[in-house]
Amino acid sequence: MADRTLKYWGWGYADDGLSADQTSALLNTFADGFDIRPTADGRRPEISDITLAEVRLTPPASLAKICTSEPFERILHSFGQSQPDSIRTFARDFAHAPDVVAYPESSENIAALYDWAGEAGAAIIPYGGGSSVVGGVTPDVGGNFAGTVTVNLARLNKVLEVDDVSRAARIEGGALGPDLEAQLKPHGLTLRHFPQSFEQSTLGGWIATRSGGHFATLYTHIDDLVENITTVTPAGSLQSRRLPGTGAGPSPDRFMMGAEGALGIITEAWVRLQGRPTFKATAGFRFTDFFDAARAVRAVSQAGLFPANVRIVDGVELQVNGAGDGSFTLMVVSFESADHPVDAWMARAEQCCLDHGGRVDVDWRDNPDANLQGAVGAWRTAFIRMPYNRENLTPRGIISDTFETATTWDNFENFYHAVKDTTATALREITGKPGAVSCRFSHAYPDGPAPYFAFHGEGRPDGMLEQWQEIKNAASDALIANGGTITHHHAVGRDHQKWYEQQRPALFGDVLSDAKRRLDPKGILNPGVVIRN
Amino acid sequence: MADRTLKYWGWGYADDGLSADQTSALLNTFADGFDIRPTADGRRPEISDITLAEVRLTPPASLAKICTSEPFERILHSFGQSQPDSIRTFARDFAHAPDVVAYPESSENIAALYDWAGEAGAAIIPYGGGSSVVGGVTPDVGGNFAGTVTVNLARLNKVLEVDDVSRAARIEGGALGPDLEAQLKPHGLTLRHFPQSFEQSTLGGWIATRSGGHFATLYTHIDDLVENITTVTPAGSLQSRRLPGTGAGPSPDRFMMGAEGALGIITEAWVRLQGRPTFKATAGFRFTDFFDAARAVRAVSQAGLFPANVRIVDGVELQVNGAGDGSFTLMVVSFESADHPVDAWMARAEQCCLDHGGRVDVDWRDNPDANLQGAVGAWRTAFIRMPYNRENLTPRGIISDTFETATTWDNFENFYHAVKDTTATALREITGKPGAVSCRFSHAYPDGPAPYFAFHGEGRPDGMLEQWQEIKNAASDALIANGGTITHHHAVGRDHQKWYEQQRPALFGDVLSDAKRRLDPKGILNPGVVIRN
Repeated sequence: MADRTLKYWGWGYADDGLSADQTSALLNTFADGFDIRPTADGRRPEISDITLAEVRLTPPASLAKICTSEPFERILHSFGQSQPDSIRTFARDFAHAPDVVAYPESSENIAALYDWAGEAGAAIIPYGGGSSVVGGVTPDVGGNFAGTVTVNLARLNKVLEVDDVSRAARIEGGALGPDLEAQLKPHGLTLRHFPQSFEQSTLGGWIATRSGGHFATLYTHIDDLVENITTVTPAGSLQSRRLPGTGAGPSPDRFMMGAEGALGIITEAWVRLQGRPTFKATAGFRFTDFFDAARAVRAVSQAGLFPANVRIVDGVELQVNGAGDGSFTLMVVSFESADHPVDAWMARAEQCCLDHGGRVDVDWRDNPDANLQGAVGAWRTAFIRMPYNRENLTPRGIISDTFETATTWDNFENFYHAVKDTTATALREITGKPGAVSCRFSHAYPDGPAPYFAFHGEGRPDGMLEQWQEIKNAASDALIANGGTITHHHAVGRDHQKWYEQQRPALFGDVLSDAKRRLDPKGILNPGVVIRN
Repeated sequence: MADRTLKYWGWGYADDGLSADQTSALLNTFADGFDIRPTADGRRPEISDITLAEVRLTPPASLAKICTSEPFERILHSFGQSQPDSIRTFARDFAHAPDVVAYPESSENIAALYDWAGEAGAAIIPYGGGSSVVGGVTPDVGGNFAGTVTVNLARLNKVLEVDDVSRAARIEGGALGPDLEAQLKPHGLTLRHFPQSFEQSTLGGWIATRSGGHFATLYTHIDDLVENITTVTPAGSLQSRRLPGTGAGPSPDRFMMGAEGALGIITEAWVRLQGRPTFKATAGFRFTDFFDAARAVRAVSQAGLFPANVRIVDGVELQVNGAGDGSFTLMVVSFESADHPVDAWMARAEQCCLDHGGRVDVDWRDNPDANLQGAVGAWRTAFIRMPYNRENLTPRGIISDTFETATTWDNFENFYHAVKDTTATALREITGKPGAVSCRFSHAYPDGPAPYFAFHGEGRPDGMLEQWQEIKNAASDALIANGGTITHHHAVGRDHQKWYEQQRPALFGDVLSDAKRRLDPKGILNPGVVIRN
């Protein structure tokens, strides 16, 4: 895998993506179902199309071996995977490409990079897999820096130690999802943390951004899978004690989690593993009414069954993804275990669904391939493909983005209407057409869901960035005004900073700024993200 | 209940305690089983025995109504419930009684108390139910203060709002366990957070100290039951957004949890509730070998069954508590649900116990009273009575204390031997007799247990405090040297501060000190606890 070339204009490797047929099916669905049609026929930028600014920084000789200013590397590290990143990529706007890309091989390398950047007045952008959809790795740091150095952790990618007894492993921060799972597999163990970005995101990135896996309940957040964290900061290393649980003072791990590279770089962590599941069951249910389906999710979540998945996908999202005709909401429920059959669990969850008006779409009984069947299977296939859609939509002038949040059940119905209506109104006013706004639940808690919205519309090729920003502003304002969170698992990055500051208690913002002055006294780490200097 | 007089020499209300028969049984068990005999026949201090220092502070007229310097109130707030607290109580050492006890009725009252204390140079001791066993509420703050004001939250004890849909409630920080459960009961809901201190501890105290309930797995820590927290600090109020989940930046709640009153007073919180359980099953198993029992706990914990309880109690602890003859380790497993029968869960857990050499002590099948039977029931009865033992042992010169920790499974057996041997050696060398050292698990995680040790020995009435401190030092050094935590759920307080500082990453200590300067700039809040000024 290490030899495959990464794509600089979209998701994954250069030799991966939608086939011509898949692209055409996607465009037809948008056109036929939602009157969203291509307004451009852009081609992807060639390296030769891209003009890069002069390199402003020269690493000292001691760091030259791990640093590069090759144009391809600078281009590859110019963006993450957000909608504005994609728009600027296809507009050939690489003005803020990093000056240097560094590939440290040790904590000492990282400390030396900090020292150099501090002296040079350069900003450091910590970079794991580059999958941020919120501008978290986009080196757009404003004019107060002498240059930018993106620090790619790819060479710190090893599982260093496996403890089969406690089921835990010590893993370097730069290990990508597939890499760490491949190293754990011989031990019969798995982290089972599967964010949608799994293939192109790292353990350190997951911890830094408080990643959520694609499982819907219980141990899906990386927060709960961490035994300890080692962070290298400009002020020194900060390593917590490896423990299964402790009540000794405020948690240092929970403080470093969510700092998104603004306080340091996570070089390694002990994480909790599981046995590889051998018992699995999946069922699908159709609901005529979206809110009946939501009530079924609430019932399952409050029953204490802890399914691996309990998720609803509304008619519009099913239709956009070729998994439904828009007439029903799909609910998926799955259980898995490495230890015991899950029939008793599944039977009770099924009853919760039937009680709330669900009709069986895919039956779980004696059906090991349930996850591949019916609307369940069709949506699953689309889910895996989703990250590849954008590179085919942006160049055709189609705006297509998602945002995600959480709120308590008592607030959910009003919240849903307010956020969806605001987004739909903004989309219509700004693009001149209704477009499409959809909702699914990405995660569910006993006290509330994590709704995940998507919006799609015809953009104006010469104004897509501004159009997207206006819609994003309206949706984000609505999230905050109606009691949600600006992000549930996508993170803050540069794109959510304004609303995050509204959501965060002001005094806690001051505490974070003090911590930044303590750990990053020169303010070089990921400026503009999470913590104001 | 509000009209009952609290005991100033021990646990609970003045009209509650062990009967003469129970006391005598306890003393006989110590004498017959462990050759631990009374070395004194102390009587409890009368109010008239106690000499209090002059009151050094006078509250301003605006606060006079909520403040008192009555001798009884000063005496009642002189100590928590630790072994040294008890020794000093019976030694009539009330030299550091607080000058003033305040009963605020609002956040505004608390802010006014901060303003006054800041001007007067006085320290503030936040006080919930006074159940600290680690010196967390003992107003022993050193000589740099003009006096001490204990702030008792008893008047902020209401459930303010119940959300039946999300199953959550907004509750004031000063609500004691029984008070808040009584207010939730009409809604058919329960917090089900039951630390051993339940009757004499408060929601705000639980959050401030990261309390652990007596359930052994999953939602037993108050950390996981909190939706948001409102803290009044000297710099202003800090209120997080009420959410079922969020990944927006480092968690402000997780930062305030564990600060133990050093950053502010928790005035209210939204907490997650459950339905009242209607399905329950409990089983008991006997193991000849303690480590076989530990392996059974590991198997159940790693099976993903999430029992309400999975706990082992060694032979010595059973014997001390009249629940066994010392020849076996007891394992208790319980499941409960408000939603569904738990037979499938229990059957699998039972198999794990039998697989590891357990023999049925109490069968769970068709046995609704299992928790009251056999060794399970005998230990349960003793567990409820335990807090009352100390006031009967200290005046007789018997040292009797507990400490608790956590470590990963791979480290557990070596850790156990090192900690137990160190404690037993110290006990023998310091008291001149073997005494008794026992272990149980208070909580269990997939990656490790939370061992809970107890030690008992014959003290020297004129040197009990020094003897206790020497044993405590040896045990605490062993916890830290062998990879454990200085506390799993008892908190840091004044008694664990030295070892907590060894355990905590040094740079995180600096971050906490910065936060204290930000939120408590005059350093008046609970000096000496968790955060150095």
